[in-house]
Parts: sequence; C-alpha cells; structure tokens
Amino acid sequence: MKRFRLHGSRSLKLDDLPEPQIGPHDVLVAVSHVGICGSDKHYYAHGRCGTFVPKAPFALGHEFSGMVAAVGSQVGTVAAGDRVAVDPLLACGRCPMCRGGHANLCPEKRYMGSAAAWPHVDGALGEKVCVPADNVHRLPDSIGPETAALIEPAAVAFHAVRRAGNVAGADVLIVGGGAIGQLILRIARALGAVRAVLADPLEYNRVVATRGGADQVVNPLANDAVGQLTAPAPGGFDVVWEAAGAESALGMAIERVRKGGVVVQVGTLPDSVSIPANLIMAKEVDLRGSIQYHKAFPEVMALLASGKLKINDLVTHRFPFAEAPAALEFALTSRDSIKILVAMPRDNTETAKS
Amino acid sequence: MKRFRLHGSRSLKLDDLPEPQIGPHDVLVAVSHVGICGSDKHYYAHGRCGTFVPKAPFALGHEFSGMVAAVGSQVGTVAAGDRVAVDPLLACGRCPMCRGGHANLCPEKRYMGSAAAWPHVDGALGEKVCVPADNVHRLPDSIGPETAALIEPAAVAFHAVRRAGNVAGADVLIVGGGAIGQLILRIARALGAVRAVLADPLEYNRVVATRGGADQVVNPLANDAVGQLTAPAPGGFDVVWEAAGAESALGMAIERVRKGGVVVQVGTLPDSVSIPANLIMAKEVDLRGSIQYHKAFPEVMALLASGKLKINDLVTHRFPFAEAPAALEFALTSRDSIKILVAMPRDNTETAKS
Amino acid sequence: MKRFRLHGSRSLKLDDLPEPQIGPHDVLVAVSHVGICGSDKHYYAHGRCGTFVPKAPFALGHEFSGMVAAVGSQVGTVAAGDRVAVDPLLACGRCPMCRGGHANLCPEKRYMGSAAAWPHVDGALGEKVCVPADNVHRLPDSIGPETAALIEPAAVAFHAVRRAGNVAGADVLIVGGGAIGQLILRIARALGAVRAVLADPLEYNRVVATRGGADQVVNPLANDAVGQLTAPAPGGFDVVWEAAGAESALGMAIERVRKGGVVVQVGTLPDSVSIPANLIMAKEVDLRGSIQYHKAFPEVMALLASGKLKINDLVTHRFPFAEAPAALEFALTSRDSIKILVAMPRDNTETAKS
Amino acid sequence: MKRFRLHGSRSLKLDDLPEPQIGPHDVLVAVSHVGICGSDKHYYAHGRCGTFVPKAPFALGHEFSGMVAAVGSQVGTVAAGDRVAVDPLLACGRCPMCRGGHANLCPEKRYMGSAAAWPHVDGALGEKVCVPADNVHRLPDSIGPETAALIEPAAVAFHAVRRAGNVAGADVLIVGGGAIGQLILRIARALGAVRAVLADPLEYNRVVATRGGADQVVNPLANDAVGQLTAPAPGGFDVVWEAAGAESALGMAIERVRKGGVVVQVGTLPDSVSIPANLIMAKEVDLRGSIQYHKAFPEVMALLASGKLKINDLVTHRFPFAEAPAALEFALTSRDSIKILVAMPRDNTETAKS
Repeated sequence: MKRFRLHGSRSLKLDDLPEPQIGPHDVLVAVSHVGICGSDKHYYAHGRCGTFVPKAPFALGHEFSGMVAAVGSQVGTVAAGDRVAVDPLLACGRCPMCRGGHANLCPEKRYMGSAAAWPHVDGALGEKVCVPADNVHRLPDSIGPETAALIEPAAVAFHAVRRAGNVAGADVLIVGGGAIGQLILRIARALGAVRAVLADPLEYNRVVATRGGADQVVNPLANDAVGQLTAPAPGGFDVVWEAAGAESALGMAIERVRKGGVVVQVGTLPDSVSIPANLIMAKEVDLRGSIQYHKAFPEVMALLASGKLKINDLVTHRFPFAEAPAALEFALTSRDSIKILVAMPRDNTETAKS
Repeated sequence: MKRFRLHGSRSLKLDDLPEPQIGPHDVLVAVSHVGICGSDKHYYAHGRCGTFVPKAPFALGHEFSGMVAAVGSQVGTVAAGDRVAVDPLLACGRCPMCRGGHANLCPEKRYMGSAAAWPHVDGALGEKVCVPADNVHRLPDSIGPETAALIEPAAVAFHAVRRAGNVAGADVLIVGGGAIGQLILRIARALGAVRAVLADPLEYNRVVATRGGADQVVNPLANDAVGQLTAPAPGGFDVVWEAAGAESALGMAIERVRKGGVVVQVGTLPDSVSIPANLIMAKEVDLRGSIQYHKAFPEVMALLASGKLKINDLVTHRFPFAEAPAALEFALTSRDSIKILVAMPRDNTETAKS
Repeated sequence: MKRFRLHGSRSLKLDDLPEPQIGPHDVLVAVSHVGICGSDKHYYAHGRCGTFVPKAPFALGHEFSGMVAAVGSQVGTVAAGDRVAVDPLLACGRCPMCRGGHANLCPEKRYMGSAAAWPHVDGALGEKVCVPADNVHRLPDSIGPETAALIEPAAVAFHAVRRAGNVAGADVLIVGGGAIGQLILRIARALGAVRAVLADPLEYNRVVATRGGADQVVNPLANDAVGQLTAPAPGGFDVVWEAAGAESALGMAIERVRKGGVVVQVGTLPDSVSIPANLIMAKEVDLRGSIQYHKAFPEVMALLASGKLKINDLVTHRFPFAEAPAALEFALTSRDSIKILVAMPRDNTETAKS
Repeated sequence: MKRFRLHGSRSLKLDDLPEPQIGPHDVLVAVSHVGICGSDKHYYAHGRCGTFVPKAPFALGHEFSGMVAAVGSQVGTVAAGDRVAVDPLLACGRCPMCRGGHANLCPEKRYMGSAAAWPHVDGALGEKVCVPADNVHRLPDSIGPETAALIEPAAVAFHAVRRAGNVAGADVLIVGGGAIGQLILRIARALGAVRAVLADPLEYNRVVATRGGADQVVNPLANDAVGQLTAPAPGGFDVVWEAAGAESALGMAIERVRKGGVVVQVGTLPDSVSIPANLIMAKEVDLRGSIQYHKAFPEVMALLASGKLKINDLVTHRFPFAEAPAALEFALTSRDSIKILVAMPRDNTETAKS
C-alpha cells in the first residue's frame, strides 16, 4: 500500500507499506479526498509543528473522506462500500474529560496526521487507513466526497461557534478569513447570526467571505479599519472569533467586542502575546479558547444535509494523489486559495466498493 | 378619537374617546395594523379570558404596528412620522425580575389589551394609542406594516425557541400549528434546527407548515400518528414545543422527546392536566414554561431585516377597521386561517406623518 | 461464595456461588456495608420493581462500600487492600449519551442490583462482587465504610442539586424527607442555599431534617400547611425538589416555586399524574427530571473529605449480613428510620486486606 | 453638613456643605462606617484613578453602612431609623444592559465616590448621603454596621465567584490576598469549593487566608512556588481568580488552571499585559472578566444572615471620621491590613434614629 510520509522538512516520500491490520472494532477506509490544513503546512515546511517534533516518518492529513473497504468482526454501524467521513480525533473514551463530553481535552488523545503523541498516528495521505468504527460517519447521498473532506474543519468551526453560546440574532465579527474563519462565518449565519463582518488583509479571502454571506468585509491594515469596524456595531460586536492566530487579531477582537460579549480564540497564537487585558475586566468579556471539537460531526452533517450550510465552494484547488508534494508546496505560497484537496485516483474507492 | 372597546361577550362598540394625553417619556402612535390573537378571541367570545374578567370596557389588540404621531418632551429615540412596532408588555422596570432580565415575570406587569391588571390597559383597536417610548421600536424600510404587526407573536415564538437553548443541529417537533406554532417552526429553522416536524389536526395548518419549512407534518388524530412521529426521530426529538394548549399535546410532547431533551410549554393549558410525569424523571427531561418574552423585539426585527426569517405570508386575512367585529367573528369560526389583521384606513397613518 | 439472592416476593435466599472471575480491567471487591434503597424494598416486597420483573434470581444492593480483594492485570488505579466505594452504574461508555457526559441516560446502561436489563447485574448483598475498575473509587482515610455506603444515594442527591443549577443564596424547599430528600437538604446547604424548608408527613423525618440544617419543617398534611410554606418565602422558593414520588408532592412543588424558579423531580411517580401544568407556563417554571447521576462520586467524596458535608448520622439502623432478610422486612414497615445498612462480618474485608 | 472631599493628590479637606435635598424616591442615609478600597487609595495618592481624573472636588467612599435619616414621599421599603447597607452602583435602569440583568455594564452607570462620570457622584465620607431607595438594603439584626460596610466588596467577590459558574466540589486557586481575594476565598468555600489555595507575596495576607479557610497558602515569589501550586492540583485548578491586578498573576492563573477550567479576572490590570494566550486555546480555558456586580447585595446578606459566611474579622483597622486622612495615609503604606474602616461618631446615626 502506498502512503506519503513526512521524512523531514519539505520531504514527502511515497512509501510502500503493508496493508493495515484491522481489529474487531476497526474499519479500513479507502481514502478519497484529503484536505490540507495549516498544521500540515507547518509540518511540511519546517519538519515540525510548533513544539511537536516527529520522531519517525508519518503521514499527514486529518481532513478526509473515503469509502469503507473492510470492517472488523464487531462492527455493525458501517459496511464495505459505504461512503464515509472520518473523525481523526482518537480519545481514550474513559477519562473524566471523555466521559464529561470533552474528548477534545482528553489527556491521552491522539490525532491522525499529528506528531503530538507517540507513537504518531498516520494521517490520510495514503491509499488506506485503519480507524476505530466509532470515528466513522456514514455519509448521506447529498454530501459528496469533496464536501465530506471539509467536515473536519467545519467541525472545528462548529465547535468554535458553539463555544460562543447562542448566536441567534447576534452581530458577529470574524478576524481571519482562512478556511476556519470562512467556515465560522457560514455556520454562524446558519445558526442565526444576523450581521456578520469578516476582517482579513488578503483580498481573496474578503471576496470569498462576501460570497459566503458576510455583510461587510474589512482590511485590518487599511487606514480606516477601526472606523470600518466601528460603524456596523458602534457598541461592539456580540461575538468575535480570533481565527487568524495573530497578536494583533486578538487585540482587535478584545477591543471590538461589546460589553458582556464573547471572544472565541480558535487561532494558534505564539506562546506569549500582549493583549489589552484590562478591557476583559472592564467590559466583562468572556474570552474562550476553542480547540478541535467534540460531538460535532453529526451536527455538521445534519446542517449540510438539510441545505442550511453550503461549503463545497470553499474547495478552491485540487491535486491528484501523485502530486501531493506539489499540493503542499502550492499551499505554502498561495494567497488565493481557501481549501486545497488531494484527490485519490477514482479507482481507489471504486476498488473498495467492489 | 375612535376606539373599539369590549363591552361584554360578542359586544364590540366603536366608542368616541378623548385623544390620549402623552407624558414626557411617552409616544402617541397612530395605529396601522392590528393582529387578532387567541386571547382576543377568548375575550370577545366569552367576555372574559380564563380568570381575567374585565371590570370596565377596554380595547383589545396587542399585536400591532403604526406610525409615530407625537412624542413626549423627553423622547429622543423616535420622531413623528417614524414607522414603528410596539411592544405591548408594560413592566415596572424596577423589581428584581425586571432588573434580572425577566420583565415577563414582573409581578406588576400589565399588558395592552388585557384585563389581567386593573386599571386595564387599552389595546390597539383604535385610531391612536399612547405608549412609553421604551416600548416603541423604529422599523427599518425592509419591514412593512403588516409584517410589523406580527412581531409581537414572533417575539413570543422567539422567546419560546430561546427557552429551548441552542437548537443548532437539532431535530425538533412542534405540537400545534396555530400562529405561534408556525412562527416557532420558522424561527427554529432560522436558528439552525435541521429537521422539523409539526403536528396539527387541521389540514390547513399542516399545509402552511410545509410551506414554512417543515420536513414533515403529522395529523395527531391519524391512526398511525405515533408511527409517523417515531419514524423521523426513533430516539425522540431534541426539542418539542407544546403550542396547542391541550393535555394530549403535552403528553405527546413528553413522550416524543428524547432522553435528556427539552419540552417547552407555550400553549395555555387547563388548570389541571394529566401527564406521564414519571417520564420526566426517567428520561431526565427539561420541561420549561414560556410566557410572552423579554428583549425579543430587536432580535426578531434583526432576523426579519436580514432575510433569515420570512413571516408575512402568515397574514391570511385582512378586515378594514370598521369591520373589526366581523374580523373577530370570522376568527372564532375559521379553520383555514393563521393570522387575521384589522387594517386602519390608510389616512390614519398618513395623517400622522404630516 | 455466599450471596443473598431474590427468588421472589419476600424470598431472599443465601446462595452458594462460585467466586466471580475478574477480567483484566476488573476489580474484585469484598463487600463491607450495603445500604437498603427504595427500589430494594420494592423488589423484596413485590418480587418486582414497577415494570422491572426479574427473569432469574439476582442479588439486591447497589449502595455499598468494600475493600479491594484483587485486581485485573490492567488495573493500576486501585490495589488489593484499598478501601473503596463503588459506583453501581454500568454504562456503555461509547454512545453519544456516554460521550456527552450523560452516562445516566445511556440506552445500554445497567445498574447493579437491578432487573431493568438482562442479564441482570447482581448487587452487593454478598461476600464479593466483580466490578469494572472505572467504577471503583478509593476512599480517603476520613471517609469510613458506613459513610462510604451512602455515597451512592448522596451522588443521586448531588446530581439532583446540580440539576437545579447554582443554588448559591437560594431559598429552597424539599418535598419528601426520605434518604434522598435528607441528602438533598444537606448538599444544597453545603452548596450555598441560605434558607431550606423540608416537608414530610412523618415526624421522624422532620426531626432528622431539623438536625440536618432545615430552617423549618412542615407537615404537608397539617391544616395550615400552605400557610407554613408560604410564610418563609411569600414569592415562592427559588428551587423545589420533589423527592417524595407523589402526585400531591409534585403539585405542591409547582405551586410553591417562584416565578422563573426550578422544580427538580427526583422521586419516582406513577405513570400518569395530574399537575397544575398551566402554572409551568404562567410562572415560566423549569421542571427538570433527575435520574441517578454522572460524574458525581468524586464530587461527593470531596465534599465529605473537606468536612463541608456530614451524612453518617443518616445511618439509623444496622443489621448483620446473616440478617439481611430481617433488614428488608424492617425497612418495609419502619417509619422511624432513614438509612438501614447491612454490615458484612468484619473478617470479610480483613481477609481481603491480607 | 461635613464631608471630606478630595481636592487633589493627598489632599482631603473637611468641607461644609448644604444638607442634600432628597427627591420622592430618595433616601437620606446617615453614614455609619466607610471602608477604604483600592480605588480610594489611588485617588488619594495620585489625585486620579487610572484614566479617571476628577474635574472638581468630590467625596471618596463607596463601601458603607448607615442609618436612614429621612425618606422621600414615595419610599415605602425603608423608614427613618432603619439600619442599612447601600449599593453605590447607580445604573440607568432602562438600557438593554440594565434590563438584561447586567446593570454593572450600563453605559450610563455612575458609581458613588468615583470620578468616572460627570458630574461626579459623591461618596460616603461625610455625615449624610442621598441615594435612590432602590439602592438601600435594610439590614437584619444579625448584621452589624462594620460587617455591613463590607457588603459592597463582598458583592464584588460574590459576583466574581458567580462568574465562575458552579464551584460545587471544585478545587480553586485565588491569586491575590487583598480584601477581594480574601472574600472570594470565603465565598467560594461557602458555595461548595472543596479545596482552596491562595497565593500572595505578603505573609500577613497568607495568614488571614489560612484563618479564612484556605487549605494551603503559597508565596508566589518563593523558589518552589510552581511546585507548591502544582502539588495540590496536578491537573490544574478548576477555577482560578486573578485578584492581584498583576501581569504575573494573570500568567500564573492561565498556567495553573486545568484543561477546560475557568479563570476570572477581577483585579485591575495595566492596559497591556503579556499572557500565554495560546494556552487559552490549547487548554480551552474560559477567561472571564468580572466588574462590580449586579443583584448581589441580597445574596451576600442572605449568606451573612444564615451564618454560612463570616467576614467581620477582615476589618483589621478602624479610624474615627476626623482622622479619615490618616486612615488613607495608613492604607497607602500598610502591609499588615485587610480592610480599614472609617467610623462616624456614634451620635451621627443615633441622631438619625431619633
């Protein structure tokens, strides 16, 4: 079986590996489409992602769809040939966090395509992956394989929206128009946010945001950025998401949220950043971190299936599997893209079906 | 000034009354459209509404839009000529309930067009009404006067949806397809409910529900009603609203909600009803009452203005002001209507404007 | 190994059974003390408990403490000789309810000493029981074996208090002064309830409530019961618990709760009861069911260890193991008891230690 | 009437002023005891408090008790001679924040003894003050005048505890052992926190914390401070309050809170501070500001009256009214005090009574 593995900075090799052995509760998934995420770019560019340094080659890719190729003896929820999305979060299921509904905070959690835990868990950038049946979600006909590869980032965004509480009737600001920011925008609107503003220095991202339902887009580097952000919500926004991972973005979020409002920090920030912390007290702000998700795949799939949420146009570029390294190179430099997919040859899943 | 007042059962008289005196914080509103509500029908039919027995003639009508005719000396939020919706809930503003964000539970609250408190507060079924400026909401151009007369029932429905918590991604059931049930359906969908079923014995109500976005409608009197309600949500619905005001409806709600789900009771029930109360414990159900609303007009108006919520087609019948008694007679017997409006002559508000 | 099993109505036989086999994640517990609960009484008196009809002999007893006799190969959290309390709720750990922090709503859950699921899970009325390690909680020195046998009902009460939300500064009413009602009283006070009233027709229960911190006790059958309940909280109680399992108790709870207040139903009611349901709407009451608990043993143990909660005086009667049938007979008729314990011979756990 | 007013840095003058005129809804309070708060110290030392620069002389003092000297014609809640605590927060009562239960976020709010708004509202450092009747709380016999002067800071602390949600069974850390930190400690324990640690560099504050129920106290400047803070809660604290107003304290709070835990920021920080913001995301922390309070006086008084909360020993020093400037000088330099009171001559309130 072929799988691209990371062997170091900018080094992705197509390794020949034995077919995964599946246990009684596992599912073998033939990969269909794999999305490239910010962490994939970090691993590829630097051979590491922040403090996570790989100890051995492993495969990237945690946003993916596929088709069931085989199931373990105890699996009754999906069957060979089923089209599926896969939740790459592998939590222990037994600790107080898991049992309290917070699998994303499990101290033993592992993530596919990440070197955060050892042994590393291979990601989806290969022909097949073995995953626990509980992580496999059968797709309805209305959700295609490209859209399905976006369910994981949509789950991250859904969780970030849910962290804000009820957004019904809210005025909201999203700082950062990458894939997560764009998904937050669309999900917030689907859940009742009535005015949405998105700020991003890249024009492409602002154009996509407008198409995705933003009432207004703002270039935070513009001279009158503060004025543009103040006009639509003079008293401040009810909710602001920091989805840029920048000190200035978090500062803007805290400054632009209303008294008693909520800031959700979903971007990855440096270890130490300066913020106008006294405003948190003086305005009685809730600043809430948001990492990954728990119990979000079914909700995202329901929103997609009901037509309330449309995201497939966020796929802006596609590369065939053989060109996965080129996809990552492109991802590193492109300023005009949202989500880049690597697509397996069609016969990968067709074989699975038969 | 002309005003229809209730003088007893089925007795509505067009009385000549002095123009209201407005205080420094008051607004004089020239009425445009008045909706007929269930409580109006009760007062008209029986000369009383449950335990509320009028002690003197008073005007019905608490769902209405209009135009500002004059403002008190201290009023700066609206001006003569402004098109407005009026919140008919008059709370004291000083008690712990009011200060805690629950004006609807204010022990001193009065409601326009209701005989619950003494002196009764006249409703809107007349040429002009005097209201506190805080209760007057200026309409954006995108909300017409008929839609504006529906904001009050929509606020009741919005509050009932909010009482359910976050409905994002939820499967929901509405038992009862009158105006409130229909509005709950539409608001729940606008706030992210992904599957919505409405049950009502009247075919007309079921047709309107389908038009309003119900995925399925059920006749609760049908032989296979239970089967029809079980099929779409075998484990039960996440949220069920009792909007019919019937013992059987509340029983159905408790039976059809899932473990850990929420039932919101917004319909007016008899004083004593039999319910499968043990299911509340065994399924750990939250059964939440919902009465009127607090801080809901701005949210409803924002949803309407943003286009996320459309309700104007719920106006199914219109009567001119002079025929208000006929409107009430029609309301008593019609089985093919949702919201019936009484419209003032156009010159009522045109005069106000000039 | 000896174990008392229920062979029918009022038939408890001391059966000789093979020592339980423990799996790699299991713990063998030598039983120390077993509390008698209302459901035990129902099974013993009627040979069934409501709709739960045993298909085979099984052991009662789900409130118990003990000492670890042996541990499976994969167990690292407790060791032989550890004094422990055991959580008798066996949930699947994998369903959405379990993963969402609601193990008590798991559709696959089983309960020790209950015939609700098949095969029945034996309870603790025997020398030893085998339980999953995750259900075993190591006791600190400050919690003795009798108190430890009360942790399970205290967890039920703790969950019922938690279901009410934050009781800090609240005026509360507990309707029903059995073991659960008494525990709710004490836990509510430990969590900040400032005025607590308990209603029970039995004088003994009222005396115990006074000792447990009730500011006032009321006999609901007294002529002036309503007056006695109104005087301390004219506007109604912030929170009321129905812990009596009676129609009249639920009615009293709904009538005596304040506008916007919370009623928690933790008692077991008949299938159909009449309630003043319209008050739920008119006062915007939250009526919340409460069944068993999830993640409550650690919290109860922390409250006990910190000295904030004292419950050991609720053990009012003790019977030796050999007289377990007499303990159940006594429990059926006694009106002057709160919690009756069956104590194993001391050498049961001493043997375990060695 | 005599009143000490601030005329500049370290300049407090005893001015002769006309007796306040009371309106129909006002109450004239003869002051009994006035506590000195951190903001009083800032105003006194620097002639200003951060960005709040007085435009005219005004009286300090917003923590105080007294006796009703006279009431306006419409006041029915208190009468001359009543002993009272006074809530110094004057909110508009009409804006969405006030009506939503967040008077502390009212954009029009004024605070007694503060130069934040113009005209400044005089504080209590004088013989009499005129306040709205809604702000006056009648004291039960069990709350003496010194304790009553601490209700305001206790309300600040109560609100800060409430902002953390439910602390029942929680492990908590308070960073900062001034009056607010000490009150948070005691209130958190009264509301069910089971383990409480307080960190402060001053030994005196640590001693008081131990007396107030801290299980452990830590000197954050000690070499092994991190170790001392890690030992009692290896996975981190459930809740941490930043009550020191220091960058390092906020950093410590974010580092020492557990995954999914809550940090409440109640101290006043500089405008820009560096924090380990990425931990907020990675641990999914809730960082919540807390300013002043809303609806907290009744709850604090209920906790005091019930005996669950004891705070009078936090009064460590007393000065007679004539020596108010000395009291402020002492407050600026003392390292061995918690709450310093200025006491009016007894005949001030005795006169009021007669």
